[in-house]
Amino acid sequence: MIIVMKRNSTAQDVKDVVAGIKAAGLNPGIIEGQERNVIGVTGDTAKIDIRTIRADHRVAEVLRVSEPYKLANRAFHPENSQIQVGTELIGGERLAIMAGPCSVENEDQIVNLAKRMKAAGANFIRGGAFKPRTSPYSFQGLELEGLRLLELAKRETGMPIVSELMSSDYLDEFVKRVDMIQIGARNMQNFDLLKAVGKTQTPILLKRGLSATYKEWLMSAEYIMSEGNQNVVLCERGIRTFETETRNTLDIQAVPVMKKKTHLPIIIDASHAGGQAYLVPAGAKAGVAAGADGLMIETHEDPANAWSDGEQCLTPDEFDKLMDQIRILAQVEGRTIAPKLARI
Amino acid sequence: MIIVMKRNSTAQDVKDVVAGIKAAGLNPGIIEGQERNVIGVTGDTAKIDIRTIRADHRVAEVLRVSEPYKLANRAFHPENSQIQVGTELIGGERLAIMAGPCSVENEDQIVNLAKRMKAAGANFIRGGAFKPRTSPYSFQGLELEGLRLLELAKRETGMPIVSELMSSDYLDEFVKRVDMIQIGARNMQNFDLLKAVGKTQTPILLKRGLSATYKEWLMSAEYIMSEGNQNVVLCERGIRTFETETRNTLDIQAVPVMKKKTHLPIIIDASHAGGQAYLVPAGAKAGVAAGADGLMIETHEDPANAWSDGEQCLTPDEFDKLMDQIRILAQVEGRTIAPKLARI
Amino acid sequence: MIIVMKRNSTAQDVKDVVAGIKAAGLNPGIIEGQERNVIGVTGDTAKIDIRTIRADHRVAEVLRVSEPYKLANRAFHPENSQIQVGTELIGGERLAIMAGPCSVENEDQIVNLAKRMKAAGANFIRGGAFKPRTSPYSFQGLELEGLRLLELAKRETGMPIVSELMSSDYLDEFVKRVDMIQIGARNMQNFDLLKAVGKTQTPILLKRGLSATYKEWLMSAEYIMSEGNQNVVLCERGIRTFETETRNTLDIQAVPVMKKKTHLPIIIDASHAGGQAYLVPAGAKAGVAAGADGLMIETHEDPANAWSDGEQCLTPDEFDKLMDQIRILAQVEGRTIAPKLARI
Amino acid sequence: MIIVMKRNSTAQDVKDVVAGIKAAGLNPGIIEGQERNVIGVTGDTAKIDIRTIRADHRVAEVLRVSEPYKLANRAFHPENSQIQVGTELIGGERLAIMAGPCSVENEDQIVNLAKRMKAAGANFIRGGAFKPRTSPYSFQGLELEGLRLLELAKRETGMPIVSELMSSDYLDEFVKRVDMIQIGARNMQNFDLLKAVGKTQTPILLKRGLSATYKEWLMSAEYIMSEGNQNVVLCERGIRTFETETRNTLDIQAVPVMKKKTHLPIIIDASHAGGQAYLVPAGAKAGVAAGADGLMIETHEDPANAWSDGEQCLTPDEFDKLMDQIRILAQVEGRTIAPKLARI
Repeated sequence: MIIVMKRNSTAQDVKDVVAGIKAAGLNPGIIEGQERNVIGVTGDTAKIDIRTIRADHRVAEVLRVSEPYKLANRAFHPENSQIQVGTELIGGERLAIMAGPCSVENEDQIVNLAKRMKAAGANFIRGGAFKPRTSPYSFQGLELEGLRLLELAKRETGMPIVSELMSSDYLDEFVKRVDMIQIGARNMQNFDLLKAVGKTQTPILLKRGLSATYKEWLMSAEYIMSEGNQNVVLCERGIRTFETETRNTLDIQAVPVMKKKTHLPIIIDASHAGGQAYLVPAGAKAGVAAGADGLMIETHEDPANAWSDGEQCLTPDEFDKLMDQIRILAQVEGRTIAPKLARI
Repeated sequence: MIIVMKRNSTAQDVKDVVAGIKAAGLNPGIIEGQERNVIGVTGDTAKIDIRTIRADHRVAEVLRVSEPYKLANRAFHPENSQIQVGTELIGGERLAIMAGPCSVENEDQIVNLAKRMKAAGANFIRGGAFKPRTSPYSFQGLELEGLRLLELAKRETGMPIVSELMSSDYLDEFVKRVDMIQIGARNMQNFDLLKAVGKTQTPILLKRGLSATYKEWLMSAEYIMSEGNQNVVLCERGIRTFETETRNTLDIQAVPVMKKKTHLPIIIDASHAGGQAYLVPAGAKAGVAAGADGLMIETHEDPANAWSDGEQCLTPDEFDKLMDQIRILAQVEGRTIAPKLARI
Repeated sequence: MIIVMKRNSTAQDVKDVVAGIKAAGLNPGIIEGQERNVIGVTGDTAKIDIRTIRADHRVAEVLRVSEPYKLANRAFHPENSQIQVGTELIGGERLAIMAGPCSVENEDQIVNLAKRMKAAGANFIRGGAFKPRTSPYSFQGLELEGLRLLELAKRETGMPIVSELMSSDYLDEFVKRVDMIQIGARNMQNFDLLKAVGKTQTPILLKRGLSATYKEWLMSAEYIMSEGNQNVVLCERGIRTFETETRNTLDIQAVPVMKKKTHLPIIIDASHAGGQAYLVPAGAKAGVAAGADGLMIETHEDPANAWSDGEQCLTPDEFDKLMDQIRILAQVEGRTIAPKLARI
Repeated sequence: MIIVMKRNSTAQDVKDVVAGIKAAGLNPGIIEGQERNVIGVTGDTAKIDIRTIRADHRVAEVLRVSEPYKLANRAFHPENSQIQVGTELIGGERLAIMAGPCSVENEDQIVNLAKRMKAAGANFIRGGAFKPRTSPYSFQGLELEGLRLLELAKRETGMPIVSELMSSDYLDEFVKRVDMIQIGARNMQNFDLLKAVGKTQTPILLKRGLSATYKEWLMSAEYIMSEGNQNVVLCERGIRTFETETRNTLDIQAVPVMKKKTHLPIIIDASHAGGQAYLVPAGAKAGVAAGADGLMIETHEDPANAWSDGEQCLTPDEFDKLMDQIRILAQVEGRTIAPKLARI
């Protein structure tokens, strides 16, 4: 941590600030400059609130050099983490391809769709049972019945289930029934929910908040990990910008940035990023080319009659075609996807 | 609602889409254009998911004309709402001045500060007992003990308490102990929490999310109101933009926009907007001049030793001076603030 | 300037980087840390491109402590600058109230409007002769004829003229005919134009770019000043954010931030910020309450028939009423506006 | 165009607005709704300023259905445009790979680098002679001498030259000496410059502005095309968002969006997007996978000693390795790049 003193600070001011730092158990070192004095601080600075030090009237600026996250930090865990989710491993050679409807609607829908997705190359079922909707008047999901239907689809296909948890009230049900708990973008800083899922060992898919910085995203991962659950996978799903023609702006650079900063795997949700089906293939292929560990893609037999988010769903045929392209592209990046099967 | 058909859509396509709209219980009307056909839809369109209609391959664009919120909409409630909170009324002639520390720290701090604030012109105590912190390693608040200390401060000053609720686990305690429940920016779209507080009659202070549009903010108010609790006050606290020199960008235009769209009161949190004490007076005065119904201002006896957010706290003397200015400014806008008292 | 070395950097690496800094004529000082070494650099660092130093593979991060602007920096010019523009002084006690149409349309319009504006309290005529329009098919302004009409309005009212210059091709004409040259938001980083106007002594009104940071804005002022023209006034006109309900987001905190960073005056363009007439009074009053040195407000006799931007124009009666409010508000801030006159 | 009348508008109001539309040579059609009346307008609405219609007090909202650009619009030019630049064709099967230094520094640098780039697979030399720098104190480019050095590099390699023009003062020189004129992000709405280059037939590389919407970007292309120059290629170079860890946020979805909206080719500048060398390969590969027609990549023999932007330059070896990957990736997308050569 670097503390820059104000131009007019005196030797006594520097001495006082240095004393405060020592009192906090950290190690200060002074550089005397022509215009300003600077104090370098080493030690465990992650617990220091730099905004409090900035409140000192003698201090001009405080800059953090070490990242405030430890467990998620690649500096302390140089190897890539691989996360076991049911029968699948995320972060290894095989890409995690999570496909399925925005909302689970009924047994036929989810079971048939899951079979089609698996045949095309998916290895995870995704489906919303509890839905975070902007409007209280919109369909809010089948809730526990939705989880039951996802279990049926898993029984038929063997694919692990990914589904979103919105409230810790249902945490026990999710731990029992799903293989991976999704924390949605709007709950990325619902710290009580993060702590609750951190107390389980169920793998967590942590979506990036709509306007979360990389650092805030990793601090939310750190919340989960600091409670004991190290099984965290990140999911870039587009951020909010001034451009409204697309639902969100897919931040493809999140992939190399996260690969540098953390050992956790990262996947791309190409459906929410674009918000329109025609954008999904480009986003998905870009994600794989940029080095992502997997993809999340919403699909529906009949998008115009989907109960939610039809606009961004691929049809099974479109998904099939995309998987054929991803299969080749993945090889260029040294990755694979599950083999294509006859219809099952 | 306006549905714009694709250029190449046929008369049959239009007929089919019209049939679908009628089936949903709405009233379509067709305009035949040279280049395109357009369908106007009237009826209760708030329950329609326009993204699903956009998924229809014959449709080019869908535009909403009516706002999707009803209870919060000024069109249906032309009069300003006034919300009773303890002994105070928000939205009337007297401004709501909510002052106090970011975090409640101990009895002396909160009681003495509350007395100073009241003497200067505040009429609400604000104080954090449960704190949403970006880092799991930061101080997380005194929790229930914090609420107890706020109650002591209320006993001494008579001022109603505003404090943030982060999880419905503590809802019953909050209903009993605080006068107004704050929903923080990071939980503005924690829909389960919104529904839970909507089932009480305790007044809610709903902060705008970091990157929430006006419409999303009002939809979150609608979540609370649709559960039965009409006592909602909005709080603009700055939005996230490309500018990082200030903690957030105070969106002062939110005041006239909200005054047009909704009958709910709106106050300005000048502390979180700027994130630095020197910015607070300008933001607070701008808020009153723009027509806000109140202010939230963080204060601390000794900002450099505050347990959180010291950088943005005013000292009691700074707060005192600001209130003297606000007192005059409020008159220009036809508002008042509580009278200045001798130290109590 | 602070250079943070990578964790694994050796003593030799530090020595080499230090040697490079000395070679550039600057003074390095080393802090040896447990985890990292840090080099503090003093001297004239404004000419150093920190991105080049970051390209050094031994360097982890480079942080600037001193601001890279000198002439615009309040640190070196603690007194407020006051800029003489024709008969008026910007930055003194009297607010600069710049009013007039988006586009100059004809003699009657501009002369009559200028008289009405002056009677209400304006002390500058603003009017567009060369118009930066998003579409090549929109009206592009009366060009030189527009300047001639502005001169007629000045002759009748004595108010100095503010008008936008888009190309250095017309610089000589502007220097002769207008009192203050406006550089529009879209040209804030048209560096050739900045250098050209910097070679004159005509006062410059420098609008903030749509997504310009405070630092970039001041660096653009520095471009003008470094060529010799110190007569620069800043104009906040709203920034681009995710919110599209308003044309731009008025960044009211720009006023106190700029008052801290620079000695140059700053005014608020309340018309472009909101983009809709009903938002203008709140933005204008907020600007004065926040401490701005003036206001720019678009007005038109008949907004629905304005040749451009009618949506955001106040009518003369609306302007009149706003000036009556501003007159009182200004007093609270220790400022004045020109006296109200009988119709002239 | 759709005009939504206010709720309380009368039959006479609708009649009056309809009359105004007819007077403007357009064709109105009325839908009478329960809550509101709506007017659909067909005809050449591109020349209408919708903000003026919004200024009508009887109108609630105006929505544009047709895009306001014609020449750039794929609706009127369904085939992809291919732009001939010297010996190369942009928008065909072969990707345009533009490589070279941020700034041209000296003859050895540019000639040797151009040879290395060509051997690796580049088919265009890029190099800055006139540099738009945020600071007036930074190196501003070798100017005309820089163009002369680029011509030498072209003579040695045969690759066409791309270089940025900042002022129409140098337009004649650029037309004579370079093969493609780059309009930089900061000048994307320098409308006078757009008109000037539109009067030539030299191909234009139009970078997206820092916070330009897709529509504004296309309107800037339309400015050039409406003056007669149809040889426009778009370049996505990252946009400004709240995230500051990367220099800009690469908007990879710009590729499929632009492919839908326009017939013009689009390339990706992976260097400015990330601003750091380690991000460039991911961005470049993502661009090709998303369907871009080419790449711009900054390279330098010794980035730590580059005269500008060293932080984001690839070394020749890094570029070489990236081209080997792009060569395979391009095939997956049905594209090619120039063959690898022995060092030339």
